[in-house]
Amino acid sequence: MTAKIISGTEMAATIRAEIKAEVEILKANTGRMPGLATVLVGGRKDSQSYVRMKKKACAEVGMASFGHDLPENISQEELLRIIQDLNENPEVHGILVQLPIPAHLNEEEILAAVGLEKDIDGFHPINIGRLSMKRREPLFVPCTPKGCIEMLDRTGVQIEGKRAVVLGRSNIVGLPVAMLLLHRNATLTICHSRTQNLPQVVREADILIVAVGRAEMVRGDWVKPGAVVIDVGTNAVDDPTTEKGYRWVGDVAFNEVKEIASAITPVPGGVGPMTIAMLLRNTLDGAKRSS
Amino acid sequence: MTAKIISGTEMAATIRAEIKAEVEILKANTGRMPGLATVLVGGRKDSQSYVRMKKKACAEVGMASFGHDLPENISQEELLRIIQDLNENPEVHGILVQLPIPAHLNEEEILAAVGLEKDIDGFHPINIGRLSMKRREPLFVPCTPKGCIEMLDRTGVQIEGKRAVVLGRSNIVGLPVAMLLLHRNATLTICHSRTQNLPQVVREADILIVAVGRAEMVRGDWVKPGAVVIDVGTNAVDDPTTEKGYRWVGDVAFNEVKEIASAITPVPGGVGPMTIAMLLRNTLDGAKRSS
Repeated sequence: MTAKIISGTEMAATIRAEIKAEVEILKANTGRMPGLATVLVGGRKDSQSYVRMKKKACAEVGMASFGHDLPENISQEELLRIIQDLNENPEVHGILVQLPIPAHLNEEEILAAVGLEKDIDGFHPINIGRLSMKRREPLFVPCTPKGCIEMLDRTGVQIEGKRAVVLGRSNIVGLPVAMLLLHRNATLTICHSRTQNLPQVVREADILIVAVGRAEMVRGDWVKPGAVVIDVGTNAVDDPTTEKGYRWVGDVAFNEVKEIASAITPVPGGVGPMTIAMLLRNTLDGAKRSS
Repeated sequence: MTAKIISGTEMAATIRAEIKAEVEILKANTGRMPGLATVLVGGRKDSQSYVRMKKKACAEVGMASFGHDLPENISQEELLRIIQDLNENPEVHGILVQLPIPAHLNEEEILAAVGLEKDIDGFHPINIGRLSMKRREPLFVPCTPKGCIEMLDRTGVQIEGKRAVVLGRSNIVGLPVAMLLLHRNATLTICHSRTQNLPQVVREADILIVAVGRAEMVRGDWVKPGAVVIDVGTNAVDDPTTEKGYRWVGDVAFNEVKEIASAITPVPGGVGPMTIAMLLRNTLDGAKRSS
């Protein structure tokens, strides 16, 4: 049996249409236009491309976006001053610092400088603390983890009581998505590079979320028949048969696993578009809350 | 084969002796005496008893303690003012708000009001956020979770690569101890009241930490032979054969599990004394840091 393919592209289009309608109502009722500020430091091509996609997505749903394109060698003080200005700017409802930032900058201090009520990436230490704790609500949930849960919900996957395995424990995806699954009453396992008998542990999952950044690492025989698989990875692999010489693959060997799982997200067109849709959702929520 | 009994009583005595020696050196070198402020709200007998034990432990290692014994109906504003005073008091290096506090008070706001550098319980949202994230160091690690890890370390239990199962997900014990195990490279599973096939999941553990508050819930056949078991529970059960009419038991059926596990903590005399020793350790660390 072949798995249902969970199309992030289609789901995100639906969500963007929902958001666009809400933006119009907000504008009509309050005159307020939601605004996203992006902060990009240095010349990483992938980061530039992500920021470009995010600004384009803003425009499509009727939101404003403000871009700061900063030199690689910017000082901590200058960057903090720019974030402070954005905190005080009433037209900005969300501030996104594109990660990673250059190593000479103090990432934790930068992320903690973003005003809590504009922290649409949810990376402020207080938001992460609240996300980790029971009965504490963060103002914003980080976009990729939020997108993963949204995909499960919109596919009708029950989370409560299921065994959820998260492969990877990054601050940006693995840890927060694990906390979200736990708060939704999954029995949670987190595994990683030091896990022994990894395929066996992964095979316990009713719901498997993979975010390690290793091309097609999870094979067909790692997956329990009928599991739901969310693949967060996006890896470029050489492919001379394509025009560009490479193609994108996930952390999951899609063609093998789709024969075993009951549902699976593709790469590209899975989690990626959902991350951007959740960023728009968070920015809109920020704009609604401000008054 | 009978398990090794991990005596928290003995281990904590060793740690208190270490701390006492360090307190004397600190006093000799700087004239500074570490000081713990306890904040107790209302008349719960168990909380009163815990606070009394903590103050007694301070005295035994040469630390000062300052007690605030506050009425049940204190207002949020008054309590915040007291904490602010303690934040500003240079003789206080650690502030402990005994939980639970009455329901009319906003616990999160109270805990967030404790100065980060005096948050010896480690419950400030920023400390919890840092505890949850990779490569972020909280100023203080919560005492009971820290005591659990210390017991594993001082028993020579390897954590890296092992399967650790935490039963319970409270903000005070389950969640933070889970994060500590993960950062020590265990493969981590968190289970709870909604977990299906609970005995089977618990049986996966090489290291099992139980913190649910249900007397003798974990039975012998829930435990993998050779596992290491840390029992955080302290439950009073009726026992007419005792003078007081009750006795203390853990969340683990000790007599059954000690025949299966390779090592186990008793109740009482296990995690409890370690929690207090870690509180002293955190207060001393706070005093050393202040200058």
